[in-house]
Amino acid sequence: MADTIQRPTPTTVPSKPDTDTGPVALDGVTTPPRINVATLGRQLLGTWADVRIAARELSARPDMQGIPGLSMAEHRTRVFGQLKVLADNGHVLRAFPTYLGGADDHGGNIAGFEELVIADPSLQIKGGVQWGLFGAAVLHLGTTVHHDKYLPDIMNLTVPGAFAMTEIGHGSDVASIGTTATFDPETDEFVIHTPFRAAWKDYLGNAAKDGIAAVLFAKLITQGVNHGVHAFYLPIRDETGAFLPGIGGEDDGLKGGLNGIDNGRLHFDHVRIPRENLLNRYGDVTADGTYTSSISSPGRRFFTMLGTLVQGRVSLDGAATAASALALTIAVTYGNQRRQFTAGSPVDEEVILDYQRHQRRLLPRLATTYAQTFAHDEFLVKFDDVFSGKADTDADRQDLETLAAALKPLSTWHALDTLQEAREACGGAGFMAANRLVGLRADLDVYATFEGDNNVLLQLVAKRLLTDYSRKFAKADAGALARYVVQQAAGRAYSGSGLRSLGQLMTDRGSTARSVGALRDTEVQRELLTDRVETMIADVAGKLRAATKLPKKEAADLFNAHQNELIEAARAHAELLQWESFTRALEKTDDAGTKQVLTWLRNLFGLGLVEKNLAWYLINGRLSAKRAQAVTAYIDRLIARIRPHAQDLVDAFGYTQDHLRAPIASGIERERQNEAREYYADLRASGHAPREEKASKK
Amino acid sequence: MADTIQRPTPTTVPSKPDTDTGPVALDGVTTPPRINVATLGRQLLGTWADVRIAARELSARPDMQGIPGLSMAEHRTRVFGQLKVLADNGHVLRAFPTYLGGADDHGGNIAGFEELVIADPSLQIKGGVQWGLFGAAVLHLGTTVHHDKYLPDIMNLTVPGAFAMTEIGHGSDVASIGTTATFDPETDEFVIHTPFRAAWKDYLGNAAKDGIAAVLFAKLITQGVNHGVHAFYLPIRDETGAFLPGIGGEDDGLKGGLNGIDNGRLHFDHVRIPRENLLNRYGDVTADGTYTSSISSPGRRFFTMLGTLVQGRVSLDGAATAASALALTIAVTYGNQRRQFTAGSPVDEEVILDYQRHQRRLLPRLATTYAQTFAHDEFLVKFDDVFSGKADTDADRQDLETLAAALKPLSTWHALDTLQEAREACGGAGFMAANRLVGLRADLDVYATFEGDNNVLLQLVAKRLLTDYSRKFAKADAGALARYVVQQAAGRAYSGSGLRSLGQLMTDRGSTARSVGALRDTEVQRELLTDRVETMIADVAGKLRAATKLPKKEAADLFNAHQNELIEAARAHAELLQWESFTRALEKTDDAGTKQVLTWLRNLFGLGLVEKNLAWYLINGRLSAKRAQAVTAYIDRLIARIRPHAQDLVDAFGYTQDHLRAPIASGIERERQNEAREYYADLRASGHAPREEKASKK
Repeated sequence: MADTIQRPTPTTVPSKPDTDTGPVALDGVTTPPRINVATLGRQLLGTWADVRIAARELSARPDMQGIPGLSMAEHRTRVFGQLKVLADNGHVLRAFPTYLGGADDHGGNIAGFEELVIADPSLQIKGGVQWGLFGAAVLHLGTTVHHDKYLPDIMNLTVPGAFAMTEIGHGSDVASIGTTATFDPETDEFVIHTPFRAAWKDYLGNAAKDGIAAVLFAKLITQGVNHGVHAFYLPIRDETGAFLPGIGGEDDGLKGGLNGIDNGRLHFDHVRIPRENLLNRYGDVTADGTYTSSISSPGRRFFTMLGTLVQGRVSLDGAATAASALALTIAVTYGNQRRQFTAGSPVDEEVILDYQRHQRRLLPRLATTYAQTFAHDEFLVKFDDVFSGKADTDADRQDLETLAAALKPLSTWHALDTLQEAREACGGAGFMAANRLVGLRADLDVYATFEGDNNVLLQLVAKRLLTDYSRKFAKADAGALARYVVQQAAGRAYSGSGLRSLGQLMTDRGSTARSVGALRDTEVQRELLTDRVETMIADVAGKLRAATKLPKKEAADLFNAHQNELIEAARAHAELLQWESFTRALEKTDDAGTKQVLTWLRNLFGLGLVEKNLAWYLINGRLSAKRAQAVTAYIDRLIARIRPHAQDLVDAFGYTQDHLRAPIASGIERERQNEAREYYADLRASGHAPREEKASKK
Repeated sequence: MADTIQRPTPTTVPSKPDTDTGPVALDGVTTPPRINVATLGRQLLGTWADVRIAARELSARPDMQGIPGLSMAEHRTRVFGQLKVLADNGHVLRAFPTYLGGADDHGGNIAGFEELVIADPSLQIKGGVQWGLFGAAVLHLGTTVHHDKYLPDIMNLTVPGAFAMTEIGHGSDVASIGTTATFDPETDEFVIHTPFRAAWKDYLGNAAKDGIAAVLFAKLITQGVNHGVHAFYLPIRDETGAFLPGIGGEDDGLKGGLNGIDNGRLHFDHVRIPRENLLNRYGDVTADGTYTSSISSPGRRFFTMLGTLVQGRVSLDGAATAASALALTIAVTYGNQRRQFTAGSPVDEEVILDYQRHQRRLLPRLATTYAQTFAHDEFLVKFDDVFSGKADTDADRQDLETLAAALKPLSTWHALDTLQEAREACGGAGFMAANRLVGLRADLDVYATFEGDNNVLLQLVAKRLLTDYSRKFAKADAGALARYVVQQAAGRAYSGSGLRSLGQLMTDRGSTARSVGALRDTEVQRELLTDRVETMIADVAGKLRAATKLPKKEAADLFNAHQNELIEAARAHAELLQWESFTRALEKTDDAGTKQVLTWLRNLFGLGLVEKNLAWYLINGRLSAKRAQAVTAYIDRLIARIRPHAQDLVDAFGYTQDHLRAPIASGIERERQNEAREYYADLRASGHAPREEKASKK
């Protein structure tokens, strides 16, 4: 590696956050607040705090952790061994039926499971394949006979299995998979077949090596009719580890990360399985080949079946958020100890987190991670309500799926972004595998495209928003839409000055402080964020209205011409959901000092969203130029105010050295810095310090 | 790995780029232009085309390429072996003196060297350590005696060496390193010493294993005076590979990437070396301990010495751009073959690059990569002019360093961003190591912080811009500044409507087409981009003016409060440089069809920069709301027009299958898709296709 070649930069020092309140005393604070780290930590742990604590104890065990630099084969062996520990202690079996040794506890199961990312993402995801996908498919798509027959061996890992859904030719389009399961009434069997190369199952965990069975997704064909995608239980390997007759496969080999998991490919040549192997909760075939289902619409049946597997997305949202918290704990701790460049003093170098740019890099990401943490807990409660049956109407399930499709993309992208920024903020030390950041980033990379490609998921959210929007007007009288259109047009009429209402323009002619005062108001932030989502959706809906009357091809073209806008609207919606969760969490925060700092952090999150989309607010007349400038100015001030609390805010995540396992966050950097400072102080005191050339010339 | 669970999305199809010209026929084009891939390819190869072609032939050799999944030890051994091939064929020795077997060819040397990134970034960087840092330091900081004594063995790899500059406690602040070299006139030796742990040299390539010598940077102390950082030649290991007495070290172990390089740490306990081992081109010590230098200012001397090593940054800019081009070649090729979801047709699935979002993800990054390619060639010419002596005044050298500090951050960040987007755009296949993207991303990660942390480099650029700005006014009469300030204030007065000049507001009341017409004008783009840089710098300069009269601490605080703004101004400056290079390249493009498409691509790059900073243009009254909206609308149109040329644009980069080595870009995906489509077509024709459940119910 080439070494850094760098010149010193002159004047850069810490701003004085707690006295720098500007012309007016913002928020009326005169003495700096203090965070109660213990109570905040408890709040961050959320609804299943005890489960999380137990899972973190497990993740702190060295034998459960990843070791950088293992070969792929060694890593796979290690993770499989760790999986057995998980099976034995039952931590990951909470979602299974109580009568089989589980706890019927869906929310707690995910809460504990996702904390495993801290030990090793390969362990988390391999566990997810076994119990969250393979086992969960038997649980949710099978019936009692399947539960009794298969679940005990799946739970105790006697039968490791693959979740054979994805095909190389149809990653995110499950409805179009090519594998067929054709019923043969002569033998009372299904014939599983791969008709072409693109229909090979691919990227399946447990398929390359460990799996001896699979839940296979194929199109069920009986009596000449294709009933769409169904799930089947299928043994794939014999006791020697060889593929059963008619089954073939390949090892996916090395991946960008998660190399503790044996991903692979499978293909089938007229493989016969008994009729009973159809996981028949939502669709069944009688001995004579008659298809029956409790759900008459094939489309609704497909969505219902896939909907039972939403927990994958739930857990990725939580795991990605945990990884972000870990990364920020490492980077903030290091940034508080590392010194670089003198600025305000001739001898003392500055702590790097005192540089404004360094704060700008880490603190907004910390605010987002807080928002995600609170949003995830609410998401998990919703998930638990649906899966426990507390609230599981069709509408509840649809809401849950939309929530999953909204939150998972944002948190998985945020994790990649945060891990990278944290890595760079730690410089060369951040690039060392020992300091964890590069390994976590490599592992989490694929979270952005598995369990649903992030862009595809956001498009689903957008479609839901469009549907809701059109329903709203379907219910209202015809006049409502007309009035709406007139209002929109009226809004446009002001576009010369870019202002929807002249009122704000007048108000804003006041001081910056007055603008700032408004921006920190919860209702103002809510209004800004909500209005943007609603307006974006209304705009696109208006543009797409013509599609219903167009031929299929033209309608598709029209839709495609607005795809990017739609996805951005979905993102805005998801960000609003996170902001609302953060805001509700604030209401539950009792300690005054903690509440004050969290309020700044929530404002940083909310105004950060506004700043990111400032052009939209200006173009659409929601903010005047003056107020738009105040957004950035206020963010700068918020960051300076939050900076002294940065360490408390990351400490509250509750990760210990056993979880961090990053030497740079261990205090070693402070020791080194102190040793150097003492050396120079002693040298100066001794009188033997060499003179500087410049000084010696004078 | 969990599998993707996804619902089908309905209507999404390709827009019709070449007929969708909106209300007016943009650019007057009626038939689609064609790119001449061969001549465009030649233009992209740039000034040292033949050298690049030769280096690409070398990079296409399997024995010179990286193999995913090697252990760290195997990878190191392989790369060291490849380094010997490089030494033997002389490709990487062009910069050394002709009389020693080099070619005194500095530009060509870098052009060939940076193409090695395509074979294996570890090979590129390990070669960079040996010849671009260790050898180049002897060349540029040493004198003839050092050249004759050391360079032959460095060139032929008999003496692998480390470039021992960076210390664990002072990554980007080289002036503050702690290692000392104290002259002892009694023995005519320098005593090299590491006074504390933070002064250990760290992250040094060749230090963990292969290096038997080093160029060491230490503070030269003689006669009780510290003359600042100087370079020394120092043997570190004996013929058995053991450290020489007084020298110790450690292996850095596994890194996030570049694991073919043996990075390590070194420390020194009063190690004595002869006086002659000082690389004495810019500073020397006589036998009695008298220090002499041709450069009297210690600060200028330091910058001059480090300035001779700028080539590292030059080559990273080129290598990062090459990696981006490779990534886009893979992703665009795959995006043109892969099909997913039906939209406009009931049976044919869409090619994914026909989705607007997919285009939005890849094509703007392609435009940036083109801009960088052209900018890099001009940068390399400038570098060659300075190092060949064609134009090497102090001003030339400063310009070159500023250019390096501006371009290297943008291109290295762009490479990470592009590699990640390309990886996600290829879905699960992109995560497979065999398809190259994850490995390249892991390797290039550290490019963002080595050879100068990107944020620190941009701050250097900002300071240069501030200096230039203040010089401009120092030369002008006092009245010029006053007038300038008045103009600024006048600009502010319009901030109620956010418009600097009412003229634009009036013009913009016309149609969208009129606004678009202006945006595609080269001069309008230049004005928008230039004005932003100048205004940002003028704004910050105004805010920092008070600093000169403040005490050191307060001045530092003031500077720090604007650090983020400064760095953003530097980024804007660097982007403008790239845009100017792209624009000059357009003037050199003869083929009319190629020129047309490149003009769209340049417009996409330029307007992409404007769109990214749209809020700034609105707040500062440079664009009306109406014209700002036109920016995004026009970008959408440009992307649709460029889309049919995407494959030609990546093919013109000239990378063959031997360079890509990514199965997904080999045509295998098209084969799979065609096989599946034929299967279904045959099935439909046979009359034996199963009926759909929905249809069978009717």
